[in-house]
Amino acid sequence: MIKGETTLRVRYGETDRMNYAYYGNYALYYEVARAELLRTYGMDYSQMEDMGVMMPVMNLHVDFLKPAKYDELLTIVTSIKKAPSVKMLFEYEVFNSQKELINTGYTTLVFIDKESKRPIRAPKFFTDLFIKDFK
Amino acid sequence: MIKGETTLRVRYGETDRMNYAYYGNYALYYEVARAELLRTYGMDYSQMEDMGVMMPVMNLHVDFLKPAKYDELLTIVTSIKKAPSVKMLFEYEVFNSQKELINTGYTTLVFIDKESKRPIRAPKFFTDLFIKDFK
Amino acid sequence: MIKGETTLRVRYGETDRMNYAYYGNYALYYEVARAELLRTYGMDYSQMEDMGVMMPVMNLHVDFLKPAKYDELLTIVTSIKKAPSVKMLFEYEVFNSQKELINTGYTTLVFIDKESKRPIRAPKFFTDLFIKDFK
Amino acid sequence: MIKGETTLRVRYGETDRMNYAYYGNYALYYEVARAELLRTYGMDYSQMEDMGVMMPVMNLHVDFLKPAKYDELLTIVTSIKKAPSVKMLFEYEVFNSQKELINTGYTTLVFIDKESKRPIRAPKFFTDLFIKDFK
Repeated sequence: MIKGETTLRVRYGETDRMNYAYYGNYALYYEVARAELLRTYGMDYSQMEDMGVMMPVMNLHVDFLKPAKYDELLTIVTSIKKAPSVKMLFEYEVFNSQKELINTGYTTLVFIDKESKRPIRAPKFFTDLFIKDFK
Repeated sequence: MIKGETTLRVRYGETDRMNYAYYGNYALYYEVARAELLRTYGMDYSQMEDMGVMMPVMNLHVDFLKPAKYDELLTIVTSIKKAPSVKMLFEYEVFNSQKELINTGYTTLVFIDKESKRPIRAPKFFTDLFIKDFK
Repeated sequence: MIKGETTLRVRYGETDRMNYAYYGNYALYYEVARAELLRTYGMDYSQMEDMGVMMPVMNLHVDFLKPAKYDELLTIVTSIKKAPSVKMLFEYEVFNSQKELINTGYTTLVFIDKESKRPIRAPKFFTDLFIKDFK
Repeated sequence: MIKGETTLRVRYGETDRMNYAYYGNYALYYEVARAELLRTYGMDYSQMEDMGVMMPVMNLHVDFLKPAKYDELLTIVTSIKKAPSVKMLFEYEVFNSQKELINTGYTTLVFIDKESKRPIRAPKFFTDLFIKDFK
């Protein structure tokens, strides 16, 4: 199992007229969280695409428990519980600055060959990065 | 059961470097779709809030089947299959301009009293709008 | 001179905690306005890019006079006062539903060859569309 | 004169199909930059609003020199050259990771009383924070 943590602040433009971080922005926050997790394993997602592998999102789920407000510093804990195969499941827990869990969610990403646009297995250079954590 | 249809175009700023409508933007598209559905029933969501009722989103789910590209005209079919009570489930089907289903999703919204910030039952002025469609 | 008009509604996710359409979203609204203007001249901006011509924005200016609120139906009047050469100036006036002018702005776009990434003159197939309006 | 520096990374959802950070997102980046600058002076912008003072943007200007790409780490240098009075001018210079200047811009913000919605002079608790830097 892999686990990582990233923090980010709610921007003014990300709030809505309820003074909550707009519900759609968590997709963006999750994207940042998983990119930062991959980075700690030595993989920039932009490199992945440069190497011909895209990872579009297959599904997205969010359960909202509490709102986040403007300027709140959020902590996102991202977990990968299963070694990547043809797809990869990222799970997220978002905490506010009082350490309260404010939402949980997940995204499933698939590996796609950039040229053929067809699904592929996770490339070896990618799975090798995580191999020791799934033994 | 209630069903409505709305169309919108993918904006340039809503695409990402894959040339796909960014996955997080569907939350925004779903928001437009449910607001337009309520409007056809004579209810502007802004009025709801002016009357002291907020409807934050409790959960969001999207299953992505195909990407949408810049400038594509999307059709979103929104359904409400159960009369609103303390919550309200909106289901979405998004079609591209070739009438292909490109994603499906749902959001559950809850009714909240604006002052107390506590959950309430759907107000009568609201449920009355839909009552004939759930008989 | 060329002049066109497009309307759009402020989305919930585009508001901020002041209950105003976030100031950064007008860049998006202007983008929609100029794409719709080109469309009335028979040119989809996506076709431009497919034909190898990109039109990145060189500058953006907005003067904010009044805020727009959630669900307001805005009218954007877009003008092009000079025939496109190596660049093209779009001017915008945004009106709220009470016909009040709420902001004015402009963007200058340049023509770029997609392959070489170098500036070019506006292609003939493009300038031909507007030629009769600048005589 | 006041000068501060903040860094941020271009998110995937902030790119467009040219693979550039969408031009409208710089308004968001500038917002982050000025909020971080105020924070180093001991003022969270959210506190300002809690104290009854709003600072809506009166104008926005951006000159784009070069694009930023996905995952680039940008540095924004924010300057305030004149003590705040009824308005406050923030100037921005954005640098990419190769230290190249990629755009410059400014925003003028005004001070508004939250209740009356009328312009006011910058409150004393605010100007006091900067007073030593403008002597």
